[in-house]
Amino acid sequence: MESATAAETAAMPRGVPLLKDELDIVIPTIRNLDFLEMWRPFLQPYHLIIVQDGDPSKIIKVPEGFDYELYNRNDINRILGPKASCISFKDSACRCFGYMVSKKKYIFTIDDDCFVAKDPSGKPINALEQHIKNLLCPSTPFFFNTLYDPFADGADFVRGYPFSLREGVPTAVSHGLWLNIPDYDAPTQLVKPLERNTRFVDAVLTIPKGTLFPMCGMNLAFDRDLIGPAMYFGLMGDGQPIGRYDDMWAGWCTKVICDHLGLGVKTGLPYIFHSKASNPFVNLRKEYKGIFWQEEIIPFFQSISLPKDCTSVQKCYVELSKQVKEKLSKVDPYFDKLADAMVTWIDAWDELNPTGASAAKVANGKAK
Amino acid sequence: MESATAAETAAMPRGVPLLKDELDIVIPTIRNLDFLEMWRPFLQPYHLIIVQDGDPSKIIKVPEGFDYELYNRNDINRILGPKASCISFKDSACRCFGYMVSKKKYIFTIDDDCFVAKDPSGKPINALEQHIKNLLCPSTPFFFNTLYDPFADGADFVRGYPFSLREGVPTAVSHGLWLNIPDYDAPTQLVKPLERNTRFVDAVLTIPKGTLFPMCGMNLAFDRDLIGPAMYFGLMGDGQPIGRYDDMWAGWCTKVICDHLGLGVKTGLPYIFHSKASNPFVNLRKEYKGIFWQEEIIPFFQSISLPKDCTSVQKCYVELSKQVKEKLSKVDPYFDKLADAMVTWIDAWDELNPTGASAAKVANGKAK
Repeated sequence: MESATAAETAAMPRGVPLLKDELDIVIPTIRNLDFLEMWRPFLQPYHLIIVQDGDPSKIIKVPEGFDYELYNRNDINRILGPKASCISFKDSACRCFGYMVSKKKYIFTIDDDCFVAKDPSGKPINALEQHIKNLLCPSTPFFFNTLYDPFADGADFVRGYPFSLREGVPTAVSHGLWLNIPDYDAPTQLVKPLERNTRFVDAVLTIPKGTLFPMCGMNLAFDRDLIGPAMYFGLMGDGQPIGRYDDMWAGWCTKVICDHLGLGVKTGLPYIFHSKASNPFVNLRKEYKGIFWQEEIIPFFQSISLPKDCTSVQKCYVELSKQVKEKLSKVDPYFDKLADAMVTWIDAWDELNPTGASAAKVANGKAK
Repeated sequence: MESATAAETAAMPRGVPLLKDELDIVIPTIRNLDFLEMWRPFLQPYHLIIVQDGDPSKIIKVPEGFDYELYNRNDINRILGPKASCISFKDSACRCFGYMVSKKKYIFTIDDDCFVAKDPSGKPINALEQHIKNLLCPSTPFFFNTLYDPFADGADFVRGYPFSLREGVPTAVSHGLWLNIPDYDAPTQLVKPLERNTRFVDAVLTIPKGTLFPMCGMNLAFDRDLIGPAMYFGLMGDGQPIGRYDDMWAGWCTKVICDHLGLGVKTGLPYIFHSKASNPFVNLRKEYKGIFWQEEIIPFFQSISLPKDCTSVQKCYVELSKQVKEKLSKVDPYFDKLADAMVTWIDAWDELNPTGASAAKVANGKAK
């Protein structure tokens, strides 16, 4: 057994497993990864998968001491062949390629403009530690616990919480939040250019079954074995009529599949410090159609029903693609293309993850 | 216009209406109300409705300067006649009589072992101010906002929140929480006698449509016009096989009716300081049957569907009583009796609130 390096020791929380060999960190980027310097005490023990967006000839510098593999567009085209068409270009949606090539059980994905936040006592927050806690503790999607996460220190299920539901279900997704620049849409950015999030809400909670949420890809962790094939970030950016809905798309699909398979989605802690608001004018151009489309997409996802024989994430996802084609193509021809890309994504996933059937087995075995 | 007293000024939050003439505070008790001394700066401007539980010959002392009316069992029997059978005796469930005799739009109900809590900066929390804020701001039950209450200072709807849902719906219920002694059931009290809640979660959130929660009556506010007739605390205590499920029953009924009528239920802030854990052995005896029964009651409420012609709270509640009789009587004959009491409660409510049809109109007019 190797002895832990200083960085590893710093990153090892008491009681929370480090999962060094079971977790990959996926970072989509177009620039040098200097932001990792601040994360070094927490993230250096882990393997990074860097998905380089945009010009493949550009050299991305990674701070010394980090263990990483890097994929640019040429790599994606070489590895996936014609199936590379399902991976977005010139958009951070390309990050989902990293989920596909990972061989680990867990993924933590973070944007390169996210820094270490501090808790109200001034202590730097080890975001990954909290995500691991969230993923390793059960979720409780069938009934709301008013003291939030019943598995947190000093908390429990309150009076009136049915005992039969206290075992919970496996957690598939841990959605973290952001201090400083909140994740607002372009219209809200335009209206409230100076708004900063300073409210530290000391809670993790399960998003109830049947409830959708806006999943942000900036600070997100998930169990690849349980839900990986649903984490497709769609067709965004170059050549597409829409951007900034990549994580939303993944969130809607993931949530309905988690609900169907009896898996949990948590939101709340950990916070990261989001440093820079993106340009609201550029964002408005990217979001424009999404603002209209989401008014039809969300009722679609709210009313979706997956057949009982969809017992794996892949089967659920392919079924979802059929329903997207059938019901959303009339909103815009884009959804026809997206539905095809969803199938291509699953094909590519299964090709790169030949034992990927394990996702099905695990999810199915634990589903309620 | 009268000038404000010192207490009124202290209680008047910036920007939040005091609602002095539109809100009653309902307190069920068996003892002198010394606990009000600590609440004086915040609660003295309001009218109190004290429901005296147990021996009617006992004199309850109320600190000087508080404006109140007090009802003991003799008063309840005199006012309701035979319908008094629906009001529990020797149980704090009797508090709902106070909801019925109030003539105000809003109710705040609090237990006499609840004191003023402090926020993390050490400032005393004006619980009622926060409840009023919660009740006057819309709820968002159809989609989850990851930054919690979008109407809180410095917060908003996040990217991906559908614009058509941002108007929200009227808030009917504000459920506050407890620092120090958490609201645990008897088994959890027995297992964790020393657990104290010290986690101050700085958030208010809407409980999503379709999700049930354990509503605690210790620190609760609601809009009587919108939901009052659903706030029946059931048959508990003296002569009944069960206790400590009064608020739970009201919570289940209230939530399904709010969901049906398009009204919102919020939970989170404000905190009160809950001083004394009740005796877990006594509690176990009271809760014993409830622990079994809730395993059938909750699926019943989760699967309930109210017909479209139930356009008022009263109509919803009477329909609910029918379904309780039909589907829960097989669990125990108690539910047959409870279903009858639910109807009696509505009869009594309408008798005491002859213009009570306003509740129907308001709820219906604003329902989505």
